[in-house]
Formats: sequence, structure tokens, C-alpha cells
Amino acid sequence: MLLEKIENPNDIKKINKKDYAALAEEIRQFLIEKISVTGGHLGSNLGAVELTMALHLSLNLPDDKIIWDVGHQSYTHKILTGRKEGFDVLRQFHGMSGFPKRKESDYDAFDTGHSSTSISAGMGLVKARDLKGENRTIVSVIGDGSLTGGMAYEALNNAAKLETNFIVVLNDNNMSISENVGGMSKYLNNIRTTTGYLDLKEGIYNALSGTRGGDNMVKTIRRAKSSFKQLVIPGMFFEDMGITYLGPVDGHDINAMTKVLKEAKRVKGCVMVHVITQKGKGYGPAERHPARFHGAEPFDIETGIPSHPRTTANYTDIFSTVMCKLGQRDDKIVAITAAMPDGTGLKRFHNMYPDRFFDVGIAEEHAVTFAAGLAAGGLKPIVAVYSSFLQRAYDQILHDVCIQNLPVVFAIDRAGLVGSDGETHQGIFDYTYLSGIPNMHVMAPKNKWELSDMLKYAVNFGAPIALRYPRGTAYDGLKEFRAPIELGKAEWIYREAEIALFAVGSMVKTAEKVRDVLKEKGYAVSLINARFVKPIDEEAVLDAAKEHRLLVTMEENVASGGYGEKVLACLNDHNIACTKCKCIRVHLPDAYIEHGNTELLKQEIGLDAESIVKRITEVWTALRQD
Amino acid sequence: MLLEKIENPNDIKKINKKDYAALAEEIRQFLIEKISVTGGHLGSNLGAVELTMALHLSLNLPDDKIIWDVGHQSYTHKILTGRKEGFDVLRQFHGMSGFPKRKESDYDAFDTGHSSTSISAGMGLVKARDLKGENRTIVSVIGDGSLTGGMAYEALNNAAKLETNFIVVLNDNNMSISENVGGMSKYLNNIRTTTGYLDLKEGIYNALSGTRGGDNMVKTIRRAKSSFKQLVIPGMFFEDMGITYLGPVDGHDINAMTKVLKEAKRVKGCVMVHVITQKGKGYGPAERHPARFHGAEPFDIETGIPSHPRTTANYTDIFSTVMCKLGQRDDKIVAITAAMPDGTGLKRFHNMYPDRFFDVGIAEEHAVTFAAGLAAGGLKPIVAVYSSFLQRAYDQILHDVCIQNLPVVFAIDRAGLVGSDGETHQGIFDYTYLSGIPNMHVMAPKNKWELSDMLKYAVNFGAPIALRYPRGTAYDGLKEFRAPIELGKAEWIYREAEIALFAVGSMVKTAEKVRDVLKEKGYAVSLINARFVKPIDEEAVLDAAKEHRLLVTMEENVASGGYGEKVLACLNDHNIACTKCKCIRVHLPDAYIEHGNTELLKQEIGLDAESIVKRITEVWTALRQD
Repeated sequence: MLLEKIENPNDIKKINKKDYAALAEEIRQFLIEKISVTGGHLGSNLGAVELTMALHLSLNLPDDKIIWDVGHQSYTHKILTGRKEGFDVLRQFHGMSGFPKRKESDYDAFDTGHSSTSISAGMGLVKARDLKGENRTIVSVIGDGSLTGGMAYEALNNAAKLETNFIVVLNDNNMSISENVGGMSKYLNNIRTTTGYLDLKEGIYNALSGTRGGDNMVKTIRRAKSSFKQLVIPGMFFEDMGITYLGPVDGHDINAMTKVLKEAKRVKGCVMVHVITQKGKGYGPAERHPARFHGAEPFDIETGIPSHPRTTANYTDIFSTVMCKLGQRDDKIVAITAAMPDGTGLKRFHNMYPDRFFDVGIAEEHAVTFAAGLAAGGLKPIVAVYSSFLQRAYDQILHDVCIQNLPVVFAIDRAGLVGSDGETHQGIFDYTYLSGIPNMHVMAPKNKWELSDMLKYAVNFGAPIALRYPRGTAYDGLKEFRAPIELGKAEWIYREAEIALFAVGSMVKTAEKVRDVLKEKGYAVSLINARFVKPIDEEAVLDAAKEHRLLVTMEENVASGGYGEKVLACLNDHNIACTKCKCIRVHLPDAYIEHGNTELLKQEIGLDAESIVKRITEVWTALRQD
Repeated sequence: MLLEKIENPNDIKKINKKDYAALAEEIRQFLIEKISVTGGHLGSNLGAVELTMALHLSLNLPDDKIIWDVGHQSYTHKILTGRKEGFDVLRQFHGMSGFPKRKESDYDAFDTGHSSTSISAGMGLVKARDLKGENRTIVSVIGDGSLTGGMAYEALNNAAKLETNFIVVLNDNNMSISENVGGMSKYLNNIRTTTGYLDLKEGIYNALSGTRGGDNMVKTIRRAKSSFKQLVIPGMFFEDMGITYLGPVDGHDINAMTKVLKEAKRVKGCVMVHVITQKGKGYGPAERHPARFHGAEPFDIETGIPSHPRTTANYTDIFSTVMCKLGQRDDKIVAITAAMPDGTGLKRFHNMYPDRFFDVGIAEEHAVTFAAGLAAGGLKPIVAVYSSFLQRAYDQILHDVCIQNLPVVFAIDRAGLVGSDGETHQGIFDYTYLSGIPNMHVMAPKNKWELSDMLKYAVNFGAPIALRYPRGTAYDGLKEFRAPIELGKAEWIYREAEIALFAVGSMVKTAEKVRDVLKEKGYAVSLINARFVKPIDEEAVLDAAKEHRLLVTMEENVASGGYGEKVLACLNDHNIACTKCKCIRVHLPDAYIEHGNTELLKQEIGLDAESIVKRITEVWTALRQD
């Protein structure tokens, strides 16, 4: 076993060159075995095995730095830097992260998670190196999918000016999570499928030289500021900007890559090394179903089938079904995703209404302003997006949708704690950033029926509106509570006395548990489903404050700018005495939450029913003693 | 006077072709005269006179749609659509906006203000047109400066797939507000300075055809997916993506532009019309000082000198001076701007430390993650940026700076109400979006000395920290109050009883006035300079709540997620009885605030001293009656 020799960083340099292919194969098997048990990103990692090995062989780590864009392809890097054992607890609570983390290893140069950041970060490290007079190689590894994100282009536009070495490896597998889209993808595809450019170049020079007028033509072309070289070799798109292009190179040929990387290190400026890889390489099911094996649940290695097939619908499924129904009823309804047709559940809508479905690539900013344009043109756009990725489009929501009060619906999936992806992907800020925006409206459904009702309400609402729902199984309790959705109106589920629980979205289910326990203990407990985070139901809050001695707000969001603060503001502004009616706010801490099972995470941070009951009873006891 | 005939939209179509040049000249004179009185964007508008005329002549408005990127170049469009009179009250309270506004005119197809949004919005209108089976021409007009913003590239990447007409006019003046930067600018410059491409193309074909091997070469090239046409005509960068390129065209030649636009309308797909214009065209001072005449104060037409030269320093000046001093003391300090070296006051730093200054173009996302990279590399980056533009980088602050707790300083200028630019530029959300982010710290100085102290504090703070200060004259009162900055500590300026004013940043000056009036009325009034919005000084709040009967928070930010909510949360969580100590929150309304003199705006929304005194005395009277 070659992999046994890989214990510490740079151990790969001791491996015999002839064994590289065998080591790559062992790494692949290791990844497949481990991820089949824990789940995790598989396809991207299988595609990057040789590329990572070539980088480790070519670089002097950790002096040199690799920045992995998105970072979900860094598993081989983790194996090669002494973290093999971590794969037993991959993405688990207190276990190893599925992304690069500076606090996890000195070999992780920059934390990533969201797309298209690596070139900007790498350029920062390059400038720091130069100003400090250091001598190290900086490499940013970015996928072709990430290259559809605007900030990658902003970075390239700036990197083009560099007069010092900076290597950008374009890991091109012709995919983002799903199929890649757009002009850049088309362009890269042209390069991939064309060979013999260098021959072509020489051929043209030869043909031109020595012909009548040809010599002058060659001179003319050479004089032209866009040099002839740029005209006929691949990658002129990048060369035009001032970036040296090397490639394309076979991303599964380690020797070829180390040769090109050696050349790349000599360039005085930004150099793009274009590496062609195959997502899921070496594992049949992942090669055939790249979207499914992007972020995989535990699976059976033989068949590739999930080990624990889902038997219950999740919120994404519900969204998917309702969207198809709505699409049939109203041909003004259009749907937008930023590279997540599968993840957001829009694939079925796409199949049914291909003309009214838009996958814009990893480009949330464009997605939102494009939606604003669609709305200004008289359509009813729904932007389906993960909470943490919508952060990218904060200004577009504020500036392009809400100033004009355009009827764009935001269907925000993966809101609240998302689990194994951790810090970068937790959707715990959306109440905050959305509630501060004038003209915006924010809802959260308590269960799967309410998601359906809210979506139907939203598409005909006529102004900017968001609904946010969590990852995972859709709650199917409280079926009998289905009052019509009304703007800014909460739903009284149980109306008693003493304690009033105001729960938002996913926390209604938890609040039900809390209430059950409190009822057993003999308390009279009301349960209010907040429904709207903006505007909040002030009447419900004020009524509850009159009828109860303790209000409890419960939300899966940070405190600042969240629902709890709105309730306090309402009580204050309406001159309600807090001594008469005390308020407890249950919310996420002012901190980034690591990866792990969401139930464990909630226990850790006091968002589970047990912790909440404990807090309530403590306060209640104190209140009684007053 | 030809301009007299331009009363209603489309009146320009009645003008005799031979009079176009004369009309353009009259429009220029009109703009210079009007803007010299009111102030406003001059350079970009003088550059776009003929382009706008050509568009109005070529299009059938308002059925056809023009989307103006940024929108500050839409003055001629306003003149040609019946809004000449508006220029007497340009950018004034209740007067005409300096930007396109759908609520102002049916001829304004989409509101703009921030950069790089027009192609996304235009594509939305294109798709809406097609799905509704309408027949209209959609034109997005974007400057080369705006093209450095990533979302413009995201949009182009998507527009490249269109199989239906969409015209993007690239208004290329080789400038953003200051000189343009980056690879794309270099590329466009190549096109601008090269002529005879079409001749060159034919020449190469001729040279190759009929030579030995040449015929085959031509065939090979034609077969190649990047067609030969794309190789030798300008704009292949765009053609490579799948966008038809037409140009370059002289942007001051109306006939040439109408011809090209006619051709552009026939293209079944996205077509880019590359128009070369001169910023400030026709007015000497604006041609020579494009940055100064980008957004001009009222000026003397003869000399171009401001009519009311500034005699007092503004916050930007103070920032500028302190940055230069800090740069001298510590060579780890580096400064970043997104196309605003003048506006942010970094020009002097640039001149003194060119290696440590980075203008990344209109690219806020890159700016922030680049800064994160610089910090990860051991430097001390300061990102100087306007509040409303930093909204673009919300995810980068949250995801790239704060998760890793990197020591990036955000120097946020134009925070609070900015005045004449209006809705799109008000910096009234930053407390909200920054305070929700873990690891972030947020300060606001009360006067010019405190800006200096806070900046010095921030550069050595060692974690993400923001300081935000307003547009305009730096307050130089309260000079004697200069306690050292301490993390999360407010500054007691006057400590009395009854009423405690907690004022943040710019509101300290207002609070002083409020206090003076209240003192005259016989109240005992404390004044606390909050200094920190995150973390707030809980001790000061709790002490004040014990010592006073009324707390008043004052901030130039929306309520949601702002300082006032933090104070209420503190009082609630520490079990302070609100009946004993009432709290009034003074903040901006949950609404977009239009353009106009900031003093007038503050009166309108109750943020002026008089309105605040009125509120306080009313509440106090009610309290006494309790």
C-alpha cells in the first residue's frame, strides 16, 4: 500500500515517480470508501486527484500556498497533508471539515466554501509576498463552474496587471454542480475540442511568409497590439487581458502537469494553467451521475445507490411540486436558479417549462437583477436559491428589486443550520439582511403545507417577498392548522395563558415539543406561528403581552436584526411594560457555527427543545419569586 | 433655438438631419449651464449627448427600452423625453432625480444607480418580451468602467446564449470615475487604437488563398470553432463568448451610430455596439479634469472653478491625511479602493505609497476578498469604500474576511444620508448588515478627531473592524472630549439625570443641539457618544437605565438591526424594567429616502434636532403623568 507511506505533509515527494498512477488509484479507492460511509463531496475530488498530486510535487508546501476555490475538491490535499484519519469523522460534529480551514492545518492557506473567491484571495497573498520581499509560489485552483461567477472575472481583470508570478489553475471539467452554462463555457469547450493549435500557428506563418504581400501581412500582424500569437493559440481570451495561457493539459497526467507547472512558475505575471479533468473520474456511478455525486449521501459502493434512501419528502420536494403546479396555472411564472437546478428542486419545472426556466450559472448577482428585469417586463419570477448564497446578491435585492418594489419571489432553501457543510453554508443571516431592506417581505413556513400556501401567496403578492425553509425533511405535523396566509399576520395555534411561544418557521416544530413538556409540567402555554418576520404581527405580540407573563421568541437566525429584536421593538414602541411581561429570545449565537449533525449543533447552542424548556422554567421560577 | 422644439418625447424625430450637430451643441450648452448652477454629473453626460440622440432616433420609445447603466449619464435622455424643466430642480428635494426612475417617466425603463446592472436587467426585459410575444428593441447602455464589475460579466456570459435580439451599447470613454484599470481596459484600448481590421481580414484571406497549403489553412481555420472572423476583427473577446461585435464606432457621429444600430437590430442574438466617446466632450475643464467633473458641485462656467469653494475639511480629507501618516509609520498598511481614489481620499496615499495602493476598478467583491488575502498574507489592509457600494461585498465580508477573523479595516465613507444622489446611494443599511456578522466590529466617530483616533485604533485592532462616517463637513465640535478608544466602550460626554441621549456617529452633533434645547427647558440631560455599534457598551446602557427615566437612541440607519434594537435587547436581556426607564429610538424610516439636501431630508423624516426635541418632550410629559 503506497498510501501507508503518506503520513505527513510532503511524503508524496518520497514516492517513486513510476508509482504515481498507483498512488492516485489508491487515493481514489480511499475517497470512495470513506465517502460511501460518511457522505461528502465525491465527484469533484475524484476529478482532482492527479492535479492535487502534481501541485504537491511541484510546490514547496506550506511555504508555497494553494487556494482551493469553493474548497470541496480539497480532499486529496487533506490526505497529502497528514489528515487521512480525519476522513473517519468527515463533516461530523467536532470532526474534520469538508472545506479548507486555516485553523485545521497550516497547509490550508485560505478558507473557502462559496464560489469564485480564490483568485482574489490569491492575489492578496501575491501582493503580500511581494511587499514583504518573500519568495513563494501562490496557486489559486478554480473550476470552470466558479469562473461563471463575476468576482472571478473581477479578479482576473486585476491579475492581468501583475508583473510578478501568480498561477491560476483552471480545473476544467465542463461542469459546475450541474451542467455548466454560458459563453465562457462555450469558449472553453472550443479549446477542449480543438487540437494542433501550435501546428496551425506555424502553418499560417509559413504560408504567409514568402508570398506576395504575405511578408508585410506577418509584419502587420506582429505590429498589431493583439499579437498574432494571441490570435491563433488557445486561451487568447485570457491572453487578450494580459494573462499568459498555458494549456490545455490533461488533468490526469501527472508528469504533463508538473512540466507545465514548472513552466508556469517562470512566468513574470499572471499565468493560467488550463487543466482538463473529468468529474467523478474512476468511479462509474459518479462519472455517469455527476450532479448526484457532487455532494453525496452515504452510498453503496457496488451500485452507487444511497445506503439510506429517503422515504420522506423534504422541503425542496414540496417546493418542486408546487412550482410545477403553479407553472401550469400561470404562464407568467418563471424560475431562476444559479447553477442549482437539482439542489433547489427546479429540475422538474425545467423539464415541464423549459422556456420559463433559467439556469444562469454560479452568478447570484446576475440572477437577482435578471429577475428584477423579468418582473419589470411583466412576468412573475421566482428566484430559488440557498440562503448563504443569496448573501452574494444582497445589493441586487436592495438596489434592483426593492427600490423599484418589483414582484420578485425569493424561495430561500437551506435556511437555518445546514449541517455537514458548516460555517460557510449556514443560512443564519437572512432574516437580518432581508428585514433591513425597505419594501421587502419575509415569511417562513411551519410545515410542508404552509410552504405550499406561502409560495402560492407569494407569486401573486405583487411586491418583493421571500420565504425561507430549512434543509431536510419537511415537517408534516400541525396539518389541521391552515389558516389562510394574510400579510403580516401570525397564526395562533394554541391560545392559553402564562407563557406564549412565538416561533418562526422551522422553530414551530421545536416549539410544539417545548409546549408539550411545559404542559406536562402544568403550565398554560400558547403557541403562535409567526409566519412573517417582516412585517411582524404587532397585534399578536401586543395581545400576547397582555394575556401572558412570559413571551418566548424562537428563530433559527442570529439575534442581530432578527425576529426577537423586532418583538422587543414592538413592545417598547407600544409602551408595554417589560416588567409585567418578560421576554426570552431564543436565537443563534453571534458566531459561525461549525459543521455537524444539526440536532447535535442545536443542543450545543441551546436551540433544542430541552435547552429551551430549561431556560423557560428558570425564568418562570424567577418571575414567580418576584 | 432647436432645443425649443424638444418639448415632448420623440420630438427629436422632427428635427432635420442637418441640424443634429447643432442640436447636440445646444444640449451641451444647456447641460453645462444647468449643472453649473445645481451641480450634478457633467462629464459622463457631455460624453453621451450624440449617443443618446442616436438611440432616440433609432428606437421607438417608450415601446423600445433603454437601460442606462449607473444612470448618471441619462441627462440627455431626460431632455429628450420632456423633462427639460426638471433641470432647474435637479437632484433637489422633491425635484428631478439625477438617475433614471420608473416613477418619474415611462421612458425610464429600469432604475439604476449602482454600476454594472444594466445587462442583467436588460436580459430580463428581453426574456419577458419574448415570452409575452412582444416585439420591441431592448438596449442596455454600459460604460467601460462598469464593465470591470463582475456582474456585468455574469450577464454577458448569459447574454451570449440568447438567440433573440438584445443590444448592448458599450459606451467606452476609457474611464470609470477615475482612470480605468485592468485587463479588460487594456483590451478595449487595443481595439480603440487599431484601425483597418476589416482590411486586415481580407488581406489575410487573400494572402492565404492560392498559396501552397494556404487554401487548406483557410479551410482549417474556417472549420475551427473559433472562426477566422473572430480571430482578426476587433471584439473577438466578445465574439468568443458568442456575442456579435459591431464597432468601434465614433460616439460623436450620430449618422454612423444610427447606421450601426440599424444593423444591430437585425442580429438574432446579443450584439455589442462598441461606441468610443470622450468624457466631458465639448467643455474644456471637464475634458481636462474628468474626475472632478464626474459629480460636480456648482461651478463657474468660464473657469470651471467651484462657485462655493470648500473652506472646511470634510471627513474624507481627515481620512486622507491620517492614512498618509499611518502609511509612513507602518509599511504593512495597504489601501484598497474600488474605482474611487478621489472620492475616498486615497489619492494622496497613492502618490506617497504607490506600491501599497490598489485601485481594483468597480469591483467591490474582489476588493474585499483581495483585502482578506492581503491580511492572510500578514499585511494591514484598509478598504476605503462608500457605504452603499459596500453592500455589493456583503458576502465577501461575511465569508472571506469574518469567518477567518482577518484584520481588514473598512473605512466606510458616505454613510448615512448622502443627499443629492438619493435612493440608490444613501448609506443607511450598514449598521444592519455589518452588525449581524460574527467577528465584525463597527464604530462611528462623533467628530474629526475621533475619526483619526478610530482609524489609528482600527489598523492595529487585529480583527475585522469598520468605521463609518458621513459625507460632508467634518464636525469639529466637542474637541475636548477625546477619551482613548476602547473596544465596546461608549464615551460619556455629559452625565446628568432624567434623560440620556445615546447618539451614534453623526448624530452626536445633533444630540448636542437636542441637549442644548432640553437644558434650556430645564431638563437634566446626559449625552453619551456610543462609539461602538458592535459590540455596544452594555455597561453604559445599564448604568444609564438606572440613572435616568428616559433613554433616547439616535442613529442615521434604518431601525431593523440598528443600534436602537441592540439597546432594547440589552435592557431586556438584563431584565431592566422598561416601565421604569422608557426608551425612544430615533432612526431612519423603513423606506428608501429620495434625493435632496440632507438637512431638509432630516426634517422630513424627523431626524433633525427640532423633531427629536418634540418627540422627547411629548414622551416626557406622558411619563410625568404616569
